[in-house]
Amino acid sequence: MAQTGHVMDYQNLLDRIHSAVEPVVNAGNNGKVASYIPELAKVNPLQFGMAIVTLDGQTFKVGEADTPFSIQSISKLFALCLAMHGEGESVWQRVGREPSGSPFNSLVQLEKENGKPRNPFINAGALVVTDMLASRHVSPETALVQFCRKLAANDTLDFDAKVARSERRTADRNAAMAHFIKSFGNLHNSVDEVLDSYCKHCAIEMSCVDLARAVSFLANRGTVPWSGEQLLDVSTAKRLSALMLTCGTYDAAGDFAFRVGLPAKSGVGGGIVAIIPGVAGVCVWSPALEETGNSYAGSIALEMLTTLSGQSIF
Amino acid sequence: MAQTGHVMDYQNLLDRIHSAVEPVVNAGNNGKVASYIPELAKVNPLQFGMAIVTLDGQTFKVGEADTPFSIQSISKLFALCLAMHGEGESVWQRVGREPSGSPFNSLVQLEKENGKPRNPFINAGALVVTDMLASRHVSPETALVQFCRKLAANDTLDFDAKVARSERRTADRNAAMAHFIKSFGNLHNSVDEVLDSYCKHCAIEMSCVDLARAVSFLANRGTVPWSGEQLLDVSTAKRLSALMLTCGTYDAAGDFAFRVGLPAKSGVGGGIVAIIPGVAGVCVWSPALEETGNSYAGSIALEMLTTLSGQSIF
Amino acid sequence: MAQTGHVMDYQNLLDRIHSAVEPVVNAGNNGKVASYIPELAKVNPLQFGMAIVTLDGQTFKVGEADTPFSIQSISKLFALCLAMHGEGESVWQRVGREPSGSPFNSLVQLEKENGKPRNPFINAGALVVTDMLASRHVSPETALVQFCRKLAANDTLDFDAKVARSERRTADRNAAMAHFIKSFGNLHNSVDEVLDSYCKHCAIEMSCVDLARAVSFLANRGTVPWSGEQLLDVSTAKRLSALMLTCGTYDAAGDFAFRVGLPAKSGVGGGIVAIIPGVAGVCVWSPALEETGNSYAGSIALEMLTTLSGQSIF
Amino acid sequence: MAQTGHVMDYQNLLDRIHSAVEPVVNAGNNGKVASYIPELAKVNPLQFGMAIVTLDGQTFKVGEADTPFSIQSISKLFALCLAMHGEGESVWQRVGREPSGSPFNSLVQLEKENGKPRNPFINAGALVVTDMLASRHVSPETALVQFCRKLAANDTLDFDAKVARSERRTADRNAAMAHFIKSFGNLHNSVDEVLDSYCKHCAIEMSCVDLARAVSFLANRGTVPWSGEQLLDVSTAKRLSALMLTCGTYDAAGDFAFRVGLPAKSGVGGGIVAIIPGVAGVCVWSPALEETGNSYAGSIALEMLTTLSGQSIF
Repeated sequence: MAQTGHVMDYQNLLDRIHSAVEPVVNAGNNGKVASYIPELAKVNPLQFGMAIVTLDGQTFKVGEADTPFSIQSISKLFALCLAMHGEGESVWQRVGREPSGSPFNSLVQLEKENGKPRNPFINAGALVVTDMLASRHVSPETALVQFCRKLAANDTLDFDAKVARSERRTADRNAAMAHFIKSFGNLHNSVDEVLDSYCKHCAIEMSCVDLARAVSFLANRGTVPWSGEQLLDVSTAKRLSALMLTCGTYDAAGDFAFRVGLPAKSGVGGGIVAIIPGVAGVCVWSPALEETGNSYAGSIALEMLTTLSGQSIF
Repeated sequence: MAQTGHVMDYQNLLDRIHSAVEPVVNAGNNGKVASYIPELAKVNPLQFGMAIVTLDGQTFKVGEADTPFSIQSISKLFALCLAMHGEGESVWQRVGREPSGSPFNSLVQLEKENGKPRNPFINAGALVVTDMLASRHVSPETALVQFCRKLAANDTLDFDAKVARSERRTADRNAAMAHFIKSFGNLHNSVDEVLDSYCKHCAIEMSCVDLARAVSFLANRGTVPWSGEQLLDVSTAKRLSALMLTCGTYDAAGDFAFRVGLPAKSGVGGGIVAIIPGVAGVCVWSPALEETGNSYAGSIALEMLTTLSGQSIF
Repeated sequence: MAQTGHVMDYQNLLDRIHSAVEPVVNAGNNGKVASYIPELAKVNPLQFGMAIVTLDGQTFKVGEADTPFSIQSISKLFALCLAMHGEGESVWQRVGREPSGSPFNSLVQLEKENGKPRNPFINAGALVVTDMLASRHVSPETALVQFCRKLAANDTLDFDAKVARSERRTADRNAAMAHFIKSFGNLHNSVDEVLDSYCKHCAIEMSCVDLARAVSFLANRGTVPWSGEQLLDVSTAKRLSALMLTCGTYDAAGDFAFRVGLPAKSGVGGGIVAIIPGVAGVCVWSPALEETGNSYAGSIALEMLTTLSGQSIF
Repeated sequence: MAQTGHVMDYQNLLDRIHSAVEPVVNAGNNGKVASYIPELAKVNPLQFGMAIVTLDGQTFKVGEADTPFSIQSISKLFALCLAMHGEGESVWQRVGREPSGSPFNSLVQLEKENGKPRNPFINAGALVVTDMLASRHVSPETALVQFCRKLAANDTLDFDAKVARSERRTADRNAAMAHFIKSFGNLHNSVDEVLDSYCKHCAIEMSCVDLARAVSFLANRGTVPWSGEQLLDVSTAKRLSALMLTCGTYDAAGDFAFRVGLPAKSGVGGGIVAIIPGVAGVCVWSPALEETGNSYAGSIALEMLTTLSGQSIF
């Protein structure tokens, strides 16, 4: 758990990060907006926002921190939390907890490991988690949206139906994965139903402030800071943080842990959430991506955050 | 960084862990001693020791904590520290920082990634690190032994020549790996020379107390606590801790981070070192291994340590 | 091309094969009926039939040679012939001509080779061939049934709708494959449409006599022996024979060529068609399968045929 | 078995092929000489030779058909014949008979199949065959040279020590393979010994005439045509022909069978041997290679041979 003792001037920190990162963003040639989902390809890449929500209730922000964006794979974190909330440890009977090595291997690994995905943060694993939600909730997407609203204390957030449809139409890889998992008996609902919900999850829109607030309960041992509601027990919350560190940023998790040293989860919409255990929830957003699928400017911003604050977990 | 504020009664903690773990060890059917190295197969599995060396200089120990054992893959950590000390960041041009996914993939990954091993804690990566040492030191094994002596403040420790020979004779898989890496130009010295040194590194013998002391500089931001010598800069020391967390325990790194939540490095001799950042170096040893190659009782002991102390990094 | 000179007493040959194989079939413990398609699992395994149709118009048969059975993957051969008939050499722009190595690799290979299946006789390849038929014919299954009727000179043959439905309901692996291929742009029609036709193709029912007659045009350099209609040019017909030899019997093609030495195509319904170039079309059927998916008794029967007749192509 | 009836004017055929292929060879930009073995890289690519030795003892030749060249992987065929001669069917307990799919997979396949190489014509398989020879003969290279002398009826042929050394020095991939196989217990002699012999086998030098004569016994059901000595029984000889067809031309075996339709074995020295069952042994040579490792002009020449003569096996 990170130090809670001394007071940190986060606003000053965010301003310094913003100054440093702005030229990188505005150059326009660092990274590329995700193009495989037509609707996402239209997003203006020259945007940057960042927010920190401390456990004592303060919100610090900079840039476009209130602009909603497509959370994409960050939804995998919330879907997992909701599934853990509902199913507890039995989740791990259907999905593993190990880094996946490389995207190249995902289907081989599924074959070798009999349809049990490596972890809940790769697409295969998130499809199984979505299937769990589909077995418990009439509408998994409604359940997840409501869960996110509660976590972010924002009743207006929702998924963007246009983005969801755009993603659904180009979902052949995910459909391949889902059918493959189903052939092993590890998908209980229909592939179409699971894909529909999965694409809606990815299309949820939240701002940096929403997301920093939404993940702060993980920095607070599973308890929502402002309401005191215990959503996950202490041990589960810590363990999900560990999982974010080892598996949260696609195939760059090792490098990300090495450079940033905070549990994090990224999405191809350009958002990255991170937690400073015992201290704060963090979110950064900038749409242009590194080759690994993580936000280019976002990664730099988080690396600066831990360097300047000394607040990595190591 | 973990909390340093309150005083922890580590001796009481170790005694409680010892009581809990002793029946597991003595049952004799939990895990198996590594058998592929003939000399190691002779070790009595019914042994257990644990030591904690705090940054303020106290040593706590329990069980066979002073018995020297074969450190095996823990040597990969020391070899990497020595290489970083000599080569700095250029190490990462020849070896990656990502989890490897699964042993099954190691050779495929090498092929796909043109002979650059995934990380320095898998055999392929350690062979490249050994090659770096062989290019800089007349005798890499002497250099590493001396480095370990300094870290452990124990001038008597050495490698066991019999174990090294036993390992060298059955090193066909490592030889395959080394030749494969060499075919990509990422091994500069002769395969025989590298394998000889590598096997001697693995055969270094240290006790739990030696090892807990030896890794304490990593918990202390790169500075040896008792001498004040800065072996690695703050950032490098933290980053190596991150690497231990994501890659330090073979293919179980994700699960280990999930359960234990401390940077750690294990060896098939049954030892596991771990660090509590800002607080202490830790080592546990028990020769019988889980299927993943990590000490069976050792993993349980470390999980108990973080559960009872609340001192995981998350 | 095989010898045509001397007269062969095929009826005597078939009788000898039947005598030898009957105890193997009746033992009931040599091989297993395919169980993954529920309807096929109901077939009585204690059946055996064989037929030879020579180019000069004679039909020789033994056992249940007139019993219709599910041709399954033998349909891949007819689908390919029909596609070659329609598209010519351009077929090879979308599907390869190399053995696939192992089923284990099929999805990896598809990824590595950008969605171009290894050959038209593995499922992935047959799905692409079916897609070609779907682009040219209003109803690909009707087109293929009519093509088989013409080849077998039997206007009554058709697919079994119950088997097709049974197969379609358990088609998750093929659906995974089809979506994966579509994600690379190598499937032009909808996955559902292609899978529907594919399952109907597999469910076509023909007898040994039908099938031996149907493949005899391939033994006759592409010309239907009794009508003189040239369906494929000489070179194409020979080349398809080569493809049958290298890729026609799943992952056992090497072993099958080694043991039998005739171009052949097998199906999990227990049928195997083979051709003796310049001499005859052959079909054998017995539902119990080897682990490789080829008919257990059928493989033995074909091996006897070439041993007794001396008529392998080598 | 191919037709033996009508007389073929092979000299005229070779002349026509030579005329057609000469501009392809002299263009100098069709294919590349193998460069990974330094000594071989020095060979002049603008060479072409071809020879046909019929079973009735006639020799037809064109171009540089008497120039000795490095037979390279064609030695795998002779090594296998010699091993079959000595060990019989037990050879297949240590090496398989299936096409290997792709070079990319070779090490994965070895791992998956516990160190049993796919077939004797990939490097891994040839290393195991060489190991068999090393267990039976004091000097496997002497034994193989003598076997080739007998087959070619040429007592002067030998391996080129300079090429063997050149190949041995760059043999890291083969060393990786050999150690890997040894780790599974499927290599009984020392890796160094096996590699030494293997490199000498590859460095054997023979001309097109030598090679066409040397393989003619395989076209003659295992019996040396001019001496009547039965080296392999009829069945074994035919089966080796089948193996050549399915596995003899690296990863292009399917395509080669498709285009040429003759059992063949190629080498990176630019040679390809082929057999017309019941008729003749054939050899073509031109050093520039296709990407698949087969002679560029040689493949065209063989395709012309079967097209013009109608003598494919299909």
